[in-house]
Amino acid sequence: MARLSEFALIQQYFESITEQRRDVGLGVGDDCALLHCPTDKMLAVSIDTLVENVHFFADVDPESLGHKSLAVNLSDLAAMGAEPAWFTLALTLPNTDTDWLQSFSKGLGQLARKHRISLVGGDTTRGPLSITIQVHGFVEKTTTMRRDGAQPGDFIFVTGTLGDAGACLAIKQNKVLPTVLSEHDMTFLQQRLERPVPRIAASQVIKSYASSAIDISDGLVADLSHITDKSHCGAQLDVDKLPLSPALAKLDLAQAKRLALYAGDDYELCFTVPANDVDALMASCAEQCTCIGRIIEGSEVSLIDNGHDITPTGKGYEHFTND
Amino acid sequence: MARLSEFALIQQYFESITEQRRDVGLGVGDDCALLHCPTDKMLAVSIDTLVENVHFFADVDPESLGHKSLAVNLSDLAAMGAEPAWFTLALTLPNTDTDWLQSFSKGLGQLARKHRISLVGGDTTRGPLSITIQVHGFVEKTTTMRRDGAQPGDFIFVTGTLGDAGACLAIKQNKVLPTVLSEHDMTFLQQRLERPVPRIAASQVIKSYASSAIDISDGLVADLSHITDKSHCGAQLDVDKLPLSPALAKLDLAQAKRLALYAGDDYELCFTVPANDVDALMASCAEQCTCIGRIIEGSEVSLIDNGHDITPTGKGYEHFTND
Repeated sequence: MARLSEFALIQQYFESITEQRRDVGLGVGDDCALLHCPTDKMLAVSIDTLVENVHFFADVDPESLGHKSLAVNLSDLAAMGAEPAWFTLALTLPNTDTDWLQSFSKGLGQLARKHRISLVGGDTTRGPLSITIQVHGFVEKTTTMRRDGAQPGDFIFVTGTLGDAGACLAIKQNKVLPTVLSEHDMTFLQQRLERPVPRIAASQVIKSYASSAIDISDGLVADLSHITDKSHCGAQLDVDKLPLSPALAKLDLAQAKRLALYAGDDYELCFTVPANDVDALMASCAEQCTCIGRIIEGSEVSLIDNGHDITPTGKGYEHFTND
Repeated sequence: MARLSEFALIQQYFESITEQRRDVGLGVGDDCALLHCPTDKMLAVSIDTLVENVHFFADVDPESLGHKSLAVNLSDLAAMGAEPAWFTLALTLPNTDTDWLQSFSKGLGQLARKHRISLVGGDTTRGPLSITIQVHGFVEKTTTMRRDGAQPGDFIFVTGTLGDAGACLAIKQNKVLPTVLSEHDMTFLQQRLERPVPRIAASQVIKSYASSAIDISDGLVADLSHITDKSHCGAQLDVDKLPLSPALAKLDLAQAKRLALYAGDDYELCFTVPANDVDALMASCAEQCTCIGRIIEGSEVSLIDNGHDITPTGKGYEHFTND
């Protein structure tokens, strides 16, 4: 265990992991970062914390953890149709394990550079391992990627496939038997859990058509219900249309559907599109988006499975409901 | 212990604790907050974490903790001469103790409303108690309240009095005997530790004259050395001029001076002013500022005490030097 001051730690492992954007007036190393915002956009900000043994296992690969810590925040920018710009990092560490720091900052830096987002500030404290990141991006003043814009008649879409991360977690926790899965399938599911891909690129297309949007972190039904709550409407999902990955489709179908509906950590986008705009959306990004239902009058998320109404039987992940 | 969802928790204890500023396009409750930045200013941001048993005792009054969590961040805005605008809150809690939440949000909200800073977003997670806040403010594009602008010949000033918070901590830890202190003195010192006053108002005056600035969180010598490092110069402090509160002055003088030089948690401002601007500064805020030394050539912070050179014998608080 090396002795390393907070200042040396930041300098060595974080100060240079991202390129400095030209809109950064003053970056890491002062009381505040000083940033130039574009005059024709709004600033979009989101903050998220990952806590050991709550959001990740203690033995997780630190490089993956570095990736995921930023990815879940970039996913919030994607859900708002925002272009990534800057992030800050508040890192609480039980000790200064230099190998761990090296790997963590590698995973973090790779994803940051891919999305041209600059690290502009942070704080390093001693304590039980947790990672808080705030992302900042720019969004058009007329953005419609909020949770409150869905209207009855709108079609409901998701990006990618659902339930993969949840399946990996369930297998790790021995809640699902992976007997039918190949090593390749397991690797795929693990990547989906540990290395989620924030849908930044897709969101830049989707934002032209969406009437509302959210990212799926707590499970499809739970997150879609935030849209229906804020938009004062209901939703009807066609469970047979849920996009399942080849790996997930090898599990028992009822189990796979349940994971796709209720499991967390997907970091795909769920969004609504007015009927008139569906053709244009599909022409722009058909390969990334699947229509899974419609917005209806009412206030509930209802499910049609194999032609039958079924009642939602689970809820998304909430941190404080099990006290 | 009440059962309370993350969403209900945010809504009940945090959503309404601050007034919504007109520059908030979309506040708490979506994937991102959407904010309107002024076109003629830079955005100043700073993030800080407080961890239980590292930054505060487990039995601290939660109302004071709510105050301090925001105060230490506002202090960073003050150090940059920035006008407070918005903040986000990432709160990690071991459980949902509603009394605790009520008191915490009360202390947080009171300070926030005083400085007209709006809560615009956050995250609530389960885990060991820690509080991360990011503040956002606006600063002139020509700001000189950075760490890198001090020049040899500049005078060094501090706001308020130094060492009070450190004295309270030392007494609690039985490192200093408070035999000479009245209950009134102890209350004063405890307020200084638990309810620091961010020097936002003073900084709005100081920013017209300062060539550099920092807030004192890790101890005067440690924080001043950040200015001298970044400005490539040295500093000479006149220890007899350190502003001591009446309570601190009742302790053994050597001990009081040591606390003023090296103890953390002051949240006063340390700043430098060119010789030509000192009269104007003193005319504007003489009652809040004390001249304690000068910037010199070199790279060290040296101390003159009672006419004698003394070498710094302690360092400020760093989290990772005791591994």
